[in-house]
Amino acid sequence: MTRERNPLDGLRQELRRGTLVLAVLSALRHERCGADLIAILAGANVPIEPGALYPMLRRLEDQGLLVSEWRVEDARRRRFYRASTEGGKTADELTTDLARLTAGLQSLKEDGE
Amino acid sequence: MTRERNPLDGLRQELRRGTLVLAVLSALRHERCGADLIAILAGANVPIEPGALYPMLRRLEDQGLLVSEWRVEDARRRRFYRASTEGGKTADELTTDLARLTAGLQSLKEDGE
Repeated sequence: MTRERNPLDGLRQELRRGTLVLAVLSALRHERCGADLIAILAGANVPIEPGALYPMLRRLEDQGLLVSEWRVEDARRRRFYRASTEGGKTADELTTDLARLTAGLQSLKEDGE
Repeated sequence: MTRERNPLDGLRQELRRGTLVLAVLSALRHERCGADLIAILAGANVPIEPGALYPMLRRLEDQGLLVSEWRVEDARRRRFYRASTEGGKTADELTTDLARLTAGLQSLKEDGE
């Protein structure tokens, strides 16, 4: 029998990972630059490191879930991101899924009390 | 640019995976045999195949999050599972985490509307 030191950490990560794309797509219903996105996610208790966020943004763009463009704003060239129509729909679907999952979990919890 | 056929399926799976252990630990606040556990999870909108459930149960037992024992009941020898004290605490912590994540997601959603 192997007994990991702290399985909770891994489980927490897994839980967080499952909701991260949904958080990013939700936050990008408004167009934002990367720095603003990071600040908004942190404010919503979904902190993410730039080293994890930017590869995710590229992947979501490759999947057609967001669009980005470079623009000059406040004399700085920045890349702005926003959810595509498909990305918005995906966020809606994931939100519905999550609501169903949390309702199911709630019923299991009540059943166990 | 690669564009996956349907990124939503993968994202849904990831969301579901993150909540699955929590669902199992919640359901095992009562002792149950595997078949009952599968039925209860399905009824809570968290269906899981036996081929995925049993390895997960073994892993959770290895991690000290659940305990199991073989017993004869209704003239059949069955294995019964229940969350350990640590497993119950883990379920509590994950429930708190999930509530925090969903509150954060809700704030992002309202912000985007």
